Amino acid sequence: MNFDNFETGAELSREEFDQRTPDLRVELLNLQFDLRSADFAVLILIMGDDRRACEELTDRMHEWFDPRGLDTEAFLDEREEELGRPLFWRYWRALPPKGRIGIHLGGWAYHAVAERILTKGGKRRFARRCEHARAFECVLTASGMSIVKVWLHSSTKALEKQLDRADKNTHGWRAREYDRTILEHHGKIEKYGEHLIEGTESDWAPWLVVESTDKRHRDMVVFEHLRDRLAGRLAGAVPAPFDPPLEAHASEPASPLRQLDMGVTADPAEYEKELPRLQRRLSDLAREARDKGVSTVLVFEGMDAAGKGGAIRRLVRGVSAALYRVTPISAPTEVERAHPYLWCFWRQMPRAGEIAIFDRSWYGRVLVERVEGFATQAEWTRAFGELRDFEAQMTEHGTVVAKFWLQIDTDEQLRRFEAREHTPYKKYKITDDDYRNRGRWDEYVAAVDEMLLRTDAKHAPWHLIAANDKHHARLEVLRAVCKALEAKL
Amino acid sequence: MNFDNFETGAELSREEFDQRTPDLRVELLNLQFDLRSADFAVLILIMGDDRRACEELTDRMHEWFDPRGLDTEAFLDEREEELGRPLFWRYWRALPPKGRIGIHLGGWAYHAVAERILTKGGKRRFARRCEHARAFECVLTASGMSIVKVWLHSSTKALEKQLDRADKNTHGWRAREYDRTILEHHGKIEKYGEHLIEGTESDWAPWLVVESTDKRHRDMVVFEHLRDRLAGRLAGAVPAPFDPPLEAHASEPASPLRQLDMGVTADPAEYEKELPRLQRRLSDLAREARDKGVSTVLVFEGMDAAGKGGAIRRLVRGVSAALYRVTPISAPTEVERAHPYLWCFWRQMPRAGEIAIFDRSWYGRVLVERVEGFATQAEWTRAFGELRDFEAQMTEHGTVVAKFWLQIDTDEQLRRFEAREHTPYKKYKITDDDYRNRGRWDEYVAAVDEMLLRTDAKHAPWHLIAANDKHHARLEVLRAVCKALEAKL
Repeated sequence: MNFDNFETGAELSREEFDQRTPDLRVELLNLQFDLRSADFAVLILIMGDDRRACEELTDRMHEWFDPRGLDTEAFLDEREEELGRPLFWRYWRALPPKGRIGIHLGGWAYHAVAERILTKGGKRRFARRCEHARAFECVLTASGMSIVKVWLHSSTKALEKQLDRADKNTHGWRAREYDRTILEHHGKIEKYGEHLIEGTESDWAPWLVVESTDKRHRDMVVFEHLRDRLAGRLAGAVPAPFDPPLEAHASEPASPLRQLDMGVTADPAEYEKELPRLQRRLSDLAREARDKGVSTVLVFEGMDAAGKGGAIRRLVRGVSAALYRVTPISAPTEVERAHPYLWCFWRQMPRAGEIAIFDRSWYGRVLVERVEGFATQAEWTRAFGELRDFEAQMTEHGTVVAKFWLQIDTDEQLRRFEAREHTPYKKYKITDDDYRNRGRWDEYVAAVDEMLLRTDAKHAPWHLIAANDKHHARLEVLRAVCKALEAKL
Repeated sequence: MNFDNFETGAELSREEFDQRTPDLRVELLNLQFDLRSADFAVLILIMGDDRRACEELTDRMHEWFDPRGLDTEAFLDEREEELGRPLFWRYWRALPPKGRIGIHLGGWAYHAVAERILTKGGKRRFARRCEHARAFECVLTASGMSIVKVWLHSSTKALEKQLDRADKNTHGWRAREYDRTILEHHGKIEKYGEHLIEGTESDWAPWLVVESTDKRHRDMVVFEHLRDRLAGRLAGAVPAPFDPPLEAHASEPASPLRQLDMGVTADPAEYEKELPRLQRRLSDLAREARDKGVSTVLVFEGMDAAGKGGAIRRLVRGVSAALYRVTPISAPTEVERAHPYLWCFWRQMPRAGEIAIFDRSWYGRVLVERVEGFATQAEWTRAFGELRDFEAQMTEHGTVVAKFWLQIDTDEQLRRFEAREHTPYKKYKITDDDYRNRGRWDEYVAAVDEMLLRTDAKHAPWHLIAANDKHHARLEVLRAVCKALEAKL
């Protein structure tokens, strides 16, 4: 990858431009119209080493497309609400729903290059950003999204000329001053731009590098490319996202669930003493985390009637209600279905210093969706890596992540179901579905085992908890959360 | 209204509390369960002159209700994204959808009292906040929401005692210091609290004032009240929101639409010269507004084929795509239907310095929804005041607001429909619906006239534009937007 190869000096005469433009614009608007009722969204990333060209191209997109169908986001100044969340939160938040075109001006690529230039020792972070970007684009492609990435390149010499011309103009001195500063870094922007393109080039989200010096040539190349991509996609040319084959385990792994000692119980006297002590401890830790701006994400999964709700209630008993939020995950809404499946979870990332507790979570992808067949094998297979990357982003941001699987055995579950027949609490009423799920017990066990093996990570560990004894489970959860926060604070 | 009357010294013994609690908690959880499938949401505002009591009560809500069904928001520190928007944006954003309970700790009441104490000359602003709060609660009630407002009151003496006790505790010195500061203002908090309750008491969103000194008494009163309100509402006791009768016009008003000179046209030569000049001017103004953090809201309404889209495209031609967003308004989504109708528009309020352009808008309530019968007469009648308040909030925040009605006559519309039969642009294809709407022309004219008469305001004016000549209309729109921005900047 070398930008020099793109400095062809190609130009397009005004005459030819004016001749080709009208038909192209009709085609683009009609494709945008067809997109409205299509089952996918389009994401256009506009980046380059020629700032003005990037902005001009974005403006032209608003001119040649119907701006009512565009969701454009310029990623320049960082906002407080963005700085408080994992890096890619801002890009996820600005994704277009199905039927629309999203334009990210700068986007993740801008932040990656800017950070690489402005901070020392950023080589590893830069490489990491590229990995996250690959993962990001992979998830989006798998959801059906069509991704177009444009890099507008100009030689330093051409940029200098451009600025000299601009200087004769009396307006916009501030923008020019800014551009002069950027120009000093142009060599670096090119260098890291080349690295970035190499690191994030893919079949499903390829880069289009265009020389930006001649505006007519530049726009014609970009819009014809857009037309071809959009027309192809609407005609059914779905790009195949990277489908990593599941790595085989080195040897047949032991089943974590079967290894769990299900007979463990808590001493009643110890429970009475420990529970309030741990709750007070967590109360203090939560306040300290708030003061330090450290966020926490807690995931609760478990067999039906394993006691997730009860464990969560005991967990938060001492914590100020202003500091945490419990999010129950159920079937996705219409708006959520118009986005990639991780979108709704990204939106729930806690603000700086807050605790987000998920009662069921993104692991539904490799549990209920896998077992019930709502996700294809390709989808849940791919999900292991996607979920690892998702959580890695949290911990790299400094968020504390802990995940809990609450396990009970079939006899205990049946006892609890039967006990619920007599409960005065309506929400615990058992339905036929609950009994039906028991028939799939072994399939769930297999899915859980694989999930535990493939998504356990040092920074985002699974806590596998024997929950036949509720008291034991509640204490274990509290201890683990306190420990995770203590380690971070 | 005098808090002294609530200092009854009522207490509840532990014995009685423990005896009444279990049944009450079962009832509350079962009511919350029933709420899940009900067609309304519950909003609980917790405020008072006893900070600790407010937080304790909120924590107890999380204990006695299932926290998975609660959307709790503590309104204390102001966030950057909130400061950039009109005042009530933050409360609208935190509203629970149907089936859930929202808890606003402090909420609008906290900000109103805090501002009244901390800033001078805030008497008018305070009164204005109360008016907005009334309007807010009125819209929510009309959407079916059930609102419970709790004020926890303590005498200064009791608060001093509470703090003295807390001082013996070694922990939490910072919270105590904070409480000491608040205590100095306690007299004022009480005074403005009384004003606030008087100013925002209503049949549909009544205040519950409870003495907070005895925790058991306090919680029992609040939760029994909640149980009764929730049970009543679930049993069908829908509170009637304030339904202001439409004020009669002093005399039969002239029809603004009929008074409009539809024959006006733009000179072609002038158009060629003026259009780019105005576009450059707006480009500069938009940048200046961005630098100064001044937001703009532009509303476009008009008869079908009146040229809204074309006018918007010419309007933004010179403006950087990063500075504006065009939002087309169509039928509400599932999530939007689970909220009051203004909710989705509040969410679209622009960030500081940005321009939000609405292609159709909240005026659908008094136009298409009225004419097609999607809104009841009570709903669209009430809407005039609701929309006035909505826009008043924008302008009080400093946002520039301008509204455009583009008018064509029936002959011109027919000509455009027929011309579209031959357009290569798919999006302009005419459907049977378009012709059907023509049959309701007179009803639309009446609705538009009434809208113009009832929602025109000096700070949020309607620009009634004769659009038979597209060039004339586009210039008029550009001129009006430039003028509005110039006046503000």
